[in-house]
Amino acid sequence: MDTQKIIRDSYPSSEKVYVPGKLFPIRVGMRKINLTDTVTIENGKRVHTPNAPVYVYDTSGPYTDPMVEVDINRGLPRLRESWIADRGDVEQLDDITSQYGRARRDDPALESIRFKHTPLPYKAKPGHSITQMYYARQGIITAEMEYVAIRENLMNEQLGIKSHITPEFVRDEVAAGRAIIPANINHPEAEPMIIGRNFLVKLNTNIGNSALSSGIEEEVDKAVWSCHWGGDTLMDLSTGDHIHETREWIIRNCPVPMGTVPIYQALEKVNGKVEDLTWEIYRDTLIEQCEQGVDYFTIHAGVLKAHADLVGERLTGIVSRGGSIMTKWCVIHNQESFLYTHFDEICEILKQYDVAISLGDGMRPGSIHDANDRSQFLELDVLGELTEKAWAHDVQVIIEGPGHIPMHKIKENMDRQLSSCHGAPFYTLGPLTTDIAPGYDHITSAIGAAQIAWLGTAMICYVTPKEHLGLPDREDVRNGVIAYKIAAHAADLAKGFPGAQVRDDAMSKARYEFRWKDQFNLALDPDRALEYYKQGSFHDG
Amino acid sequence: MDTQKIIRDSYPSSEKVYVPGKLFPIRVGMRKINLTDTVTIENGKRVHTPNAPVYVYDTSGPYTDPMVEVDINRGLPRLRESWIADRGDVEQLDDITSQYGRARRDDPALESIRFKHTPLPYKAKPGHSITQMYYARQGIITAEMEYVAIRENLMNEQLGIKSHITPEFVRDEVAAGRAIIPANINHPEAEPMIIGRNFLVKLNTNIGNSALSSGIEEEVDKAVWSCHWGGDTLMDLSTGDHIHETREWIIRNCPVPMGTVPIYQALEKVNGKVEDLTWEIYRDTLIEQCEQGVDYFTIHAGVLKAHADLVGERLTGIVSRGGSIMTKWCVIHNQESFLYTHFDEICEILKQYDVAISLGDGMRPGSIHDANDRSQFLELDVLGELTEKAWAHDVQVIIEGPGHIPMHKIKENMDRQLSSCHGAPFYTLGPLTTDIAPGYDHITSAIGAAQIAWLGTAMICYVTPKEHLGLPDREDVRNGVIAYKIAAHAADLAKGFPGAQVRDDAMSKARYEFRWKDQFNLALDPDRALEYYKQGSFHDG
Repeated sequence: MDTQKIIRDSYPSSEKVYVPGKLFPIRVGMRKINLTDTVTIENGKRVHTPNAPVYVYDTSGPYTDPMVEVDINRGLPRLRESWIADRGDVEQLDDITSQYGRARRDDPALESIRFKHTPLPYKAKPGHSITQMYYARQGIITAEMEYVAIRENLMNEQLGIKSHITPEFVRDEVAAGRAIIPANINHPEAEPMIIGRNFLVKLNTNIGNSALSSGIEEEVDKAVWSCHWGGDTLMDLSTGDHIHETREWIIRNCPVPMGTVPIYQALEKVNGKVEDLTWEIYRDTLIEQCEQGVDYFTIHAGVLKAHADLVGERLTGIVSRGGSIMTKWCVIHNQESFLYTHFDEICEILKQYDVAISLGDGMRPGSIHDANDRSQFLELDVLGELTEKAWAHDVQVIIEGPGHIPMHKIKENMDRQLSSCHGAPFYTLGPLTTDIAPGYDHITSAIGAAQIAWLGTAMICYVTPKEHLGLPDREDVRNGVIAYKIAAHAADLAKGFPGAQVRDDAMSKARYEFRWKDQFNLALDPDRALEYYKQGSFHDG
Repeated sequence: MDTQKIIRDSYPSSEKVYVPGKLFPIRVGMRKINLTDTVTIENGKRVHTPNAPVYVYDTSGPYTDPMVEVDINRGLPRLRESWIADRGDVEQLDDITSQYGRARRDDPALESIRFKHTPLPYKAKPGHSITQMYYARQGIITAEMEYVAIRENLMNEQLGIKSHITPEFVRDEVAAGRAIIPANINHPEAEPMIIGRNFLVKLNTNIGNSALSSGIEEEVDKAVWSCHWGGDTLMDLSTGDHIHETREWIIRNCPVPMGTVPIYQALEKVNGKVEDLTWEIYRDTLIEQCEQGVDYFTIHAGVLKAHADLVGERLTGIVSRGGSIMTKWCVIHNQESFLYTHFDEICEILKQYDVAISLGDGMRPGSIHDANDRSQFLELDVLGELTEKAWAHDVQVIIEGPGHIPMHKIKENMDRQLSSCHGAPFYTLGPLTTDIAPGYDHITSAIGAAQIAWLGTAMICYVTPKEHLGLPDREDVRNGVIAYKIAAHAADLAKGFPGAQVRDDAMSKARYEFRWKDQFNLALDPDRALEYYKQGSFHDG
């Protein structure tokens, strides 16, 4: 693979800095934006007053560190490998466990597209629990917990800003299930991050080729690109022939946690025939992906056979692909969903790798008309029941939410999610606040995302301008990420998150003092700001 | 002037329809979107079921009516001229009143850029009140009131949707000052529209050349363009040499009410020297513009001398240009603002033409840091006092609001505005919910605009992607308008406005049935939706 296209540019006037841990020998990456001086004229002389640099949350990983040599053919440095090994409760396997995974590995036809440096997977030693939730409940602070505590605080202590976020606080939130640290032991390349409503709001980006479209190289590029602009996690929704290989390339080069929807791949394995799906195929898919390093799985285990009957009340039926697949399976077989009946076994598998569950909302509304309807909230109650089951296994859980919701119905979603799902973090797609603006759904949904995040949603899944119309290209990804960075940040401000306003204040001071370069450099998208500035003369109106 | 560039395209599958009045011989323009049939297979046969057309609010005026011949050199048809004449309380003047206006008219050097068909202005007959508020308070329903009542209801009665909006309701809201119908008797080309929190949320667009930039032709084009995409009113913020002539061209060709900030032109008349501004120059400017047909004036009469001292508390000082001019004037002359001291005379002038006042927020915060501060709310109290003064003259009033506000401080703005300003309609710029995204401020502000409109703001002033960076071009205007159409519509849905969901439901049904053309045609921006669809294969993920 060619690494020419992969974005490695640093942001202008920014540098990668590392903040050392106090409890663990860790180095937490951040981006430091250096500012120019304020210049005033006093007694006829130019007086320079320095402006403090601004530290910002950095999701771009080693790509923006000029000291790190990146080769996507070898993958990123394995940041967490020693931390995991040091805990002494995992073992490296002699072989991969999944039958499908072995078959792919042994297929000579795949030689040309295979990632060459896949290490053998790790797994919990028999009898050991290794999830971040398990440790937290034991009162243990892990290196990952300290990492996220430092990361969330962005050096604000230097500015005298008090923060509630300490390693102990992180531990308590993870123990209570109010936050998760998605951190598969087989994805040690990823930087630890935390998803919970008492932390910075996070955003997820979706990428994924389809049978028709892009190749592996393009997907890796898009993954790095989305992290560059600010994606906190990444879901790979690929379909088509080379899901397994594409995923391997992405994970090995991905500095953020990655999620998937395993039922998509399971369906590919039975050539798209829903009726042929079985628990065994699904189970092998889970193991295959656990051992590759996927950090969280969307599992639509809340879609029950009984829900199928309710769909007739809707204008737009079931729009979740996973929900649609499982409903169809239940109807064809006249059986309860195997995701539901085998949920404990799913947890048993996931806990051995510390893979988190993102409980899918198969009944999410696909239109303003269907928002907050019976199907949606009945499923939510089932998700609450499953949350408690997962927690019994120390498996970390987040809950997926809609979708399409008019503004006045957003709060009910958040309230119900909190009460039905016992405080597990909420993770919503938008929501879109109107249906009438295809081509601009990054905006219809950023409006909803900002509000639901303010109300307590921990992570928002981006929507690009191409939603409902086509697959996003690079520019769409950038526009989607920035719209969601805005929504997330607006929510952080509204929540009064410690230090959230530092960057706004620095920007506003630069604006007031006409320090143009600093305005560009402090912007979420410096390139765009500069481009627009160059296009038109400034207008003071 | 060349009319080639002016957009006259109809929206695809749409037609201009006119709904007749019951009380007056009026015809209310709307856009009717025709849909294709739903096709199902029953017993092996294709069965066609028609879908009802969707009527949408149409701000594009005669431009999208192929039956109307448009010539911008002659101006639009004078829709309201006979309505006004029929009331018998206005007279056409023998000459224009403003000294400056006469000087411009008589200057042979301006011959080449002068609009040739300017009619002589109308004015109230001595002793007559002619404002919509006056009529409403007398219990009179005007043709304008019936027009807006029909316009707001969009034929929803046909669908069995009940609406509170009747001509009587319109009258009552205008009488109470909760809504205004900006309708200068000298701008009879504009279609009546209403601004009030119990009506559809409206959006304003700003255009305007600067000394450096665009010419008259371009400004007329931009005005029509912004109406085409959905601008409900238009503010001309032009500066430079030919403000008077540019304005004349725009008004004569503008199908929506137009606003200005007269202090901008007054300042041009004294060559930008704030110290040289006088009440007399300002007064002549008001009369000049009243007689040209400006429908509402932004007047920063709430900026008082005492406010100047408070600005030191701020990070970004005074960002309103009008506020800055008046503060400077007060400090230089050590006098109270002439806009404040002469406010009754201002009302006396405006009432003779039915020009509404938009009380400017000269102290609006220019950053998250300064939101909801003392200066802002002290000024708001003054605006409340001035509102009552204007109402004593039967002058219609709206109140301008910020600006930059983090989400959690938005509600306080709305609550305080309602209580301080006695229920007069609120008209806000955004607000922007964060400062850190130059290049994307149509999004940072659409998030705030949707929320404040839901809470009761009657009109939102758009922000384009170029905000803080440069003058908007055509594409920026389009992006700004659509972002604000989204915000306004999301608010209409959240407010439960009668029939607001009709278009969403039609779109969602088309989506569910894969009627692609209907999806494009129902979209706020059909061209963009189609363009994106063509760019990428559809993804069902």
